[in-house]
Amino acid sequence: MKNETYIRVVRDMKFKNPVVIEGLPGIGLVGKLAAEHLVRELEAKRIAEIYSPHFPHQVIMRKNGTIRMLRNVIYGYKKGKVELIILLGDVQAVTSEAQFEVTNKMLDYFKSLNAKRIYTLGGYGSGKYFDKPRVLGAATHKRLVEEFEKRGVVFGESKGTIIGAAGMLLGLGKLQGMEGVCLMGETHGAYVDANSAKVLLKKLSEIIGITVKLDALDKRVKVDKITEQEMKKLEESEGKEGPLSYIR
Amino acid sequence: MKNETYIRVVRDMKFKNPVVIEGLPGIGLVGKLAAEHLVRELEAKRIAEIYSPHFPHQVIMRKNGTIRMLRNVIYGYKKGKVELIILLGDVQAVTSEAQFEVTNKMLDYFKSLNAKRIYTLGGYGSGKYFDKPRVLGAATHKRLVEEFEKRGVVFGESKGTIIGAAGMLLGLGKLQGMEGVCLMGETHGAYVDANSAKVLLKKLSEIIGITVKLDALDKRVKVDKITEQEMKKLEESEGKEGPLSYIR
Amino acid sequence: MKNETYIRVVRDMKFKNPVVIEGLPGIGLVGKLAAEHLVRELEAKRIAEIYSPHFPHQVIMRKNGTIRMLRNVIYGYKKGKVELIILLGDVQAVTSEAQFEVTNKMLDYFKSLNAKRIYTLGGYGSGKYFDKPRVLGAATHKRLVEEFEKRGVVFGESKGTIIGAAGMLLGLGKLQGMEGVCLMGETHGAYVDANSAKVLLKKLSEIIGITVKLDALDKRVKVDKITEQEMKKLEESEGKEGPLSYIR
Amino acid sequence: MKNETYIRVVRDMKFKNPVVIEGLPGIGLVGKLAAEHLVRELEAKRIAEIYSPHFPHQVIMRKNGTIRMLRNVIYGYKKGKVELIILLGDVQAVTSEAQFEVTNKMLDYFKSLNAKRIYTLGGYGSGKYFDKPRVLGAATHKRLVEEFEKRGVVFGESKGTIIGAAGMLLGLGKLQGMEGVCLMGETHGAYVDANSAKVLLKKLSEIIGITVKLDALDKRVKVDKITEQEMKKLEESEGKEGPLSYIR
Repeated sequence: MKNETYIRVVRDMKFKNPVVIEGLPGIGLVGKLAAEHLVRELEAKRIAEIYSPHFPHQVIMRKNGTIRMLRNVIYGYKKGKVELIILLGDVQAVTSEAQFEVTNKMLDYFKSLNAKRIYTLGGYGSGKYFDKPRVLGAATHKRLVEEFEKRGVVFGESKGTIIGAAGMLLGLGKLQGMEGVCLMGETHGAYVDANSAKVLLKKLSEIIGITVKLDALDKRVKVDKITEQEMKKLEESEGKEGPLSYIR
Repeated sequence: MKNETYIRVVRDMKFKNPVVIEGLPGIGLVGKLAAEHLVRELEAKRIAEIYSPHFPHQVIMRKNGTIRMLRNVIYGYKKGKVELIILLGDVQAVTSEAQFEVTNKMLDYFKSLNAKRIYTLGGYGSGKYFDKPRVLGAATHKRLVEEFEKRGVVFGESKGTIIGAAGMLLGLGKLQGMEGVCLMGETHGAYVDANSAKVLLKKLSEIIGITVKLDALDKRVKVDKITEQEMKKLEESEGKEGPLSYIR
Repeated sequence: MKNETYIRVVRDMKFKNPVVIEGLPGIGLVGKLAAEHLVRELEAKRIAEIYSPHFPHQVIMRKNGTIRMLRNVIYGYKKGKVELIILLGDVQAVTSEAQFEVTNKMLDYFKSLNAKRIYTLGGYGSGKYFDKPRVLGAATHKRLVEEFEKRGVVFGESKGTIIGAAGMLLGLGKLQGMEGVCLMGETHGAYVDANSAKVLLKKLSEIIGITVKLDALDKRVKVDKITEQEMKKLEESEGKEGPLSYIR
Repeated sequence: MKNETYIRVVRDMKFKNPVVIEGLPGIGLVGKLAAEHLVRELEAKRIAEIYSPHFPHQVIMRKNGTIRMLRNVIYGYKKGKVELIILLGDVQAVTSEAQFEVTNKMLDYFKSLNAKRIYTLGGYGSGKYFDKPRVLGAATHKRLVEEFEKRGVVFGESKGTIIGAAGMLLGLGKLQGMEGVCLMGETHGAYVDANSAKVLLKKLSEIIGITVKLDALDKRVKVDKITEQEMKKLEESEGKEGPLSYIR
């Protein structure tokens, strides 16, 4: 491993036509909570780890006395026709140059696993409280807008830009012939929102045709300091005044 | 597309001796408004898109539910002897290193289309209100100063530096054997100035020998958040106290 | 020497199975004080100098009228079965990208000297005063936790992350097949702590099986401006509010 | 010219054993004023221009209506045994990485002209007013300290570090087998100091064995905005509280 982003494959798993699901830290941690819960409920297997000079130069001290690098982790899941590649992680790269490098490395890997479709998960912060948050969408292609509207995803109501991996995986993926949808749970934006994550994961599981128990999701809400710091940096790197009007 | 600026040619258009016109976001959006109006009035054709890791890592959510990457777009126009290559875009690169990379890529492409002359458009902010703004100029060569003075462009009254693409395309272009003029509409600098853009576009159209209706220009004034943010960053990257004394 | 980190070997010294000891500037200068004292008491020999474009672009003016570049220095020591490679320095690289580059260069060099084990030294700041500071540990492997617990190092009580070289040498080293432990003297964090350095060095010397006189350590406490500045930068680069909860 | 620092040779001038004199912007502009005056009095010839993506992405608007890139310029002078290569410029690179790249390019060029010795000029700011400023020195080698002490340069009184080109040319030059002295005029540090520049240039001209009229130096004091901005950035890049205790 040298001075570029490095994907370390730890398990060889074959896929025919998998769907990529991204759940890195972002607004309200909505996407991260949903994707982490999915990985655990499905007992998805770790297939690769991503290390990058664009992630903070820190190692995490674990309770058992050992350390580990900050990283992203890719999980694989196969059951019948359902094939999933799920991307989790401690952090996202902060600058544009870094996001491009990391995202392109990921896309190369996803393509090597025959993936053509990507769902990125996030929160859409609007500064309001939602009793029944909806799932908003933004897609790479018009045909996907139509496909997902039928499934109850709301398009055309989210404004502004999608910052970071949730946007870049779709934007750069499209330039490389892939397609995808960003699925955003409505949320306030200023706090961690397990309820929005539940609604988002429920919709996602309908879309991919699986059943996931959602009860335990709340208990998993635990924002570690690092994630908070990194979110803050990502936000600052955009020069925005508030975190509410964009998803990350 | 990997980790450098990438020009994606979308239409093959041949030119003999085209003039490049740059209208990226800058002071008072004077140059951008003028160039965008020109593209629409002439119904110029999109010939290339520019993507860069030096542009913000965001995708724009469109009203129709789809997304697109932040980018610059190059348009082509040919009619009789008039051959134009017009550069528009959401953003400019922010750092010096990024501006050099992006500008050099653009110049390579412009030269491949046989371009030798570049007009960059901008506003010259002076903190005053102008009823009848003049068009100020700064040229790569003394002979161009003389040529454009005859056409009513005022030289030698603008002071300081030209920051960003409007300056770099001329500065780096000159080092590569090209020539050009920066045309600046006088403007206050603190607000979007459609009037200055009109005066600038009128002068430009005389120079290139075309007729453009200017009435609709005002209606197109719509500053999107992204452009404002990016302008702010570009400005901050220069460590300047105020936005008024330099064009961007 | 060009635009990357450069290790200039100044003395050829062979090792069979040396242990690397890192003592670059960090919290309370605990690790630096301990490692510097070790080098002087053992009269270890300078074997290499490290220069890097990621260190500040400054030269130090010495009292004798000459200058020298900011740098890191590697010392070697051999006596019987004890083989040590000790890393000291004025500064650490500040950004993640720089830390990765510098750390990887160092690891390549350490491996070329047959090193497989690394001890990184630091302070663990907790905002409290310690009469009898303990030595906390964090290891690359569970088996090292067990080995070092027997020697009185306390594991599992330090929380958060280890920032900079003390963490990166272990994290990146592990990815390259090396092993190691970060040894941290408990300290307040807001001032230079020679007492914690003494306790740390005492424990370290027991572990490596040598005897070191500790009396003179206090006299060597001299924080130069550069080190302070660099520590501040490293800290700021993490966007942290306080220096206390992480070791550097 | 692409995305690295580029030295454009504009005049072929041969040297046998020239001395390099550096006078880029720094504290009190002492070095810059002295070196610029020297170039004009000697009527030295422009031999090369240096352009860099690490210089600000701006072009300067000249009074005659033309523009030019920000740059450094190298002048050559030969008369009898006196052979000089003088480095002037609008700006210095701001980051460490950039300073290394630019300095290494310069050193390669100087070596290609057979230069082995470098004198860098600067101000040594101490927050005091000097009626009769002295010339302080810092050298690459002990033998130069002795040589220059005989000529009235004061060594061992300047403390801290030399930041930027004045330090890097010596530090990196020494690593490449060159030698040199940084000559610093004592100055307050908070304002442009033509008097210190005079004293410095007088001493320098004695050292290199030439006679230079100093009367006109005062009239040339004209701090342009760009230089001021760049100096500020360089200073900020070091995280220093005040500009006084270091030369730049």
